[in-house]
Amino acid sequence: MNLSIQTPTLLLDRYRCLVNIDHMIAKAKRHNISLRPHFKTHQSRTIGQWYAQRGVEKITVSSVAMAEYFASDWSDITIAFPTNILELKRIEQLTEQVQINVLVESLEVAIYLKENLKQHVGVFIKIDVGYGRTGIAAENLSLIQSLVTTLENANNLDFKGFLAHAGHTYQCRSKMCIEQTHALSLKRMQTLKEHFINHPRPLEYSYGDTPSCSVAEDFTGMTELRPGNFVFYDLTQRAIGSNAYENIAVAMACPIVALHRERQEVVVYGGGVHFSKDRLEHPDYGTIFGRVVVQTETGWGEVIPDAYVRSLSQEHGIIRLPKALMAQQRIGDFIFVLPVHSCMAANLQTSYLTTEGEWIERL
Amino acid sequence: MNLSIQTPTLLLDRYRCLVNIDHMIAKAKRHNISLRPHFKTHQSRTIGQWYAQRGVEKITVSSVAMAEYFASDWSDITIAFPTNILELKRIEQLTEQVQINVLVESLEVAIYLKENLKQHVGVFIKIDVGYGRTGIAAENLSLIQSLVTTLENANNLDFKGFLAHAGHTYQCRSKMCIEQTHALSLKRMQTLKEHFINHPRPLEYSYGDTPSCSVAEDFTGMTELRPGNFVFYDLTQRAIGSNAYENIAVAMACPIVALHRERQEVVVYGGGVHFSKDRLEHPDYGTIFGRVVVQTETGWGEVIPDAYVRSLSQEHGIIRLPKALMAQQRIGDFIFVLPVHSCMAANLQTSYLTTEGEWIERL
Repeated sequence: MNLSIQTPTLLLDRYRCLVNIDHMIAKAKRHNISLRPHFKTHQSRTIGQWYAQRGVEKITVSSVAMAEYFASDWSDITIAFPTNILELKRIEQLTEQVQINVLVESLEVAIYLKENLKQHVGVFIKIDVGYGRTGIAAENLSLIQSLVTTLENANNLDFKGFLAHAGHTYQCRSKMCIEQTHALSLKRMQTLKEHFINHPRPLEYSYGDTPSCSVAEDFTGMTELRPGNFVFYDLTQRAIGSNAYENIAVAMACPIVALHRERQEVVVYGGGVHFSKDRLEHPDYGTIFGRVVVQTETGWGEVIPDAYVRSLSQEHGIIRLPKALMAQQRIGDFIFVLPVHSCMAANLQTSYLTTEGEWIERL
Repeated sequence: MNLSIQTPTLLLDRYRCLVNIDHMIAKAKRHNISLRPHFKTHQSRTIGQWYAQRGVEKITVSSVAMAEYFASDWSDITIAFPTNILELKRIEQLTEQVQINVLVESLEVAIYLKENLKQHVGVFIKIDVGYGRTGIAAENLSLIQSLVTTLENANNLDFKGFLAHAGHTYQCRSKMCIEQTHALSLKRMQTLKEHFINHPRPLEYSYGDTPSCSVAEDFTGMTELRPGNFVFYDLTQRAIGSNAYENIAVAMACPIVALHRERQEVVVYGGGVHFSKDRLEHPDYGTIFGRVVVQTETGWGEVIPDAYVRSLSQEHGIIRLPKALMAQQRIGDFIFVLPVHSCMAANLQTSYLTTEGEWIERL
C-alpha cells in the first residue's frame, strides 16, 4: 500500500467490515430477529450509513453523547448504559428529535425518571444473565415485577421489555465455551419470558454480545440482537473464539522510528494513546498488545508468526519480529498491527483511513 | 464539593499539583541541575504556565503535535521520542518558531536528517541505560562515537549531548529499588561522560524519569532532568515508591449509575474511555483500575481502605466498597477515583476541572 500518512493511523478494510456487517444482518434475518447493532465500536456516521443502506433501522449506543452524534441519522436509539440521571436534560432534548430508549435497573431510578423526566422515553429493564456487571438477576422476579409495575404506571415511561448482555462470554477461549455460556444466559432470558407470557402486550427481549451473536445459532424467544464489536472484530474476539484473524477489519499503521536488530525489535510510533492499554495473554509470547500482519498492495493479509507488540508506552510500541523479517525493516516504513481491542483503539482516533484511501469521520 | 458536572471529569487539585512542581524545581536547584519537565502528562498550556511563572524555561514533549501545541508559549522544546522521519516537514516548520531538539539513535536517521532537513535542529543521542526500550547501549562507544562524528559533520545538526530515560525504575516496588536502579543507570551515563571528557565543547547529559527524580539525591554529572508524571503522580508511581497517596493531584469524578448492595458494588459512569485500561496488581484486591478517596468540601482526602475499581468496560467502572460506605451511596452522587496511570487518563480528557471550579484546557 502507498500511504501518504505520517503518524499512527487506524486503517479500515471496508470490504472486511462490510462482510462482517452483511454476515450479522443475514444471521439476524435467518433467525427472524431484529438487529439493533451497537455503534460504540465504530462511532462513525459513515459506517452507520453502511448499516442503514442494508435496511437496519435502529441502533444501540453507550452514552448520551453518542446518541446526540447519531441522532441526525437514526430515529430509534437505545442508550445501553444504566441511566445517568445527571444527564436528564440532554436525554429530554434527544427525545424531541428521536425515539430514545434508556436502561433502568432499580426502583429508585425508575421513580426518579417518573417524577423528573419531562418527555417520553422508552425503557428497558436491564437483566443480569450471569455477567455480574449490571442489571437485576434474571431470577429476582419480585424486584423485576415491581419495577415493571412502576414503569407501567408512569405516563412518561414506555416500558419496552428486557435487555441483557452476556458479557461473561468474554472470559471464554473457545467456541464451545461461548455456546455454553450463551445457552445458560439465553435460558435465563427465556425463563423470564415464560414468567411474562401473559403480559397484556408484547414485550421486547433484547440480547446480544459479539461472541454469542457470532457463534451461537439459537436465539429462541429473543426479539432483537445488539452486538457491536463484530463490525471490526479484534485479537480479543479472536482469542475468545468469535472470529478468525481474517475477519479483523482494522489495523494500525505505525511508522518505524528505530530498529534494534540485535534483539529483533522494532520501535514504532504507536503507543497507549493510539491502542489503549488492553492486553492479551499469548501461550508463547506472554502478554501482547497487538499482532503484526503482512502488508499487501490493497491492504493487509495474514498474521505473521512470532511478530507481535510486546509493550506499549504512551507513544512507543515495541514490536518483536522474526529474524528474516527484521532484516527487511527500514526506518520510515510502516508496520501494520491488529489491535487487541478495536473498540478502545477506535475510540482514540479522530478518523479512520480506508485501505482504498478514503478518510472516514467519527465522533 | 459542589459539582455542576454530569459526566466523568478529571478533577485537578491545583494546590497538590503546584506542590509537586515546586518540589521538583527546588530539587533541581538544590542539585544545581537544569529542569526540562516533560509535558506529555498534563498536555496543558495553562499548567505549562505554572512552570513558566516559576522560572522554568525549556520543556520536553513526546510528539511533534505536542511541540506544535506548546510552541506558542515555549522557545526551547525537546521532542523526546526517536525522530519520526515522516514528520520532517512539520519539524522544519517548528524550527522556524522555536529551538527544537530531536532524538537520534542510529546512523541511518542521523544521515537522513543531515541530507534532508532544511533547517537547524538540536540533536540528542538517545542512550539506553538499561531500560531496553530505545537508545544505544551506553557501553556501545564505537557506535556512539561514530554517531557523534556524523552529527558534528552536519551543518544543519547541532549535536547537544546525550539523553537517557531509566524507564526500568517503573518495575520497582520500593524506594530502595528505585535508588539502586537509578544508581546503575546514572553510573552508565557518568562512564559515558568520562569518555567524552575531552570533547572540545561542553555536552548535555539529560536524564530523568519520575521515580528517579522523585526519590534519588545524586545526579552528579547530569546537566538536566526531564521528569513528567510527577506533576500529577498516580497509583502506579505510588506503587513504585515515587510518591504518597496525598501527592496525587488528579481524581476522576464518576457519577454513580447503579448500586448492587448485595455484592457491595457500585456501577459508575467512568470506564476505559476515561481512564484507559492501565491496571495495577494489589496484594489484597488483585487487579485494580483505581482507588476511591474521601470527598471533602474543598476536594478530596485519604484513600479509603477496601474501596477500589475492580473492572473497567468501555463506559462502566465497577467499584467495590466496604459495607458501611456502600450504605451511604446514592445514585447521581459522585465517586472520586485516583487513576492508575495519570498520563493515560489525562490524555483521554478534553479539559480538567480544578477543585476550585476552574476549567483548564489541554491539547
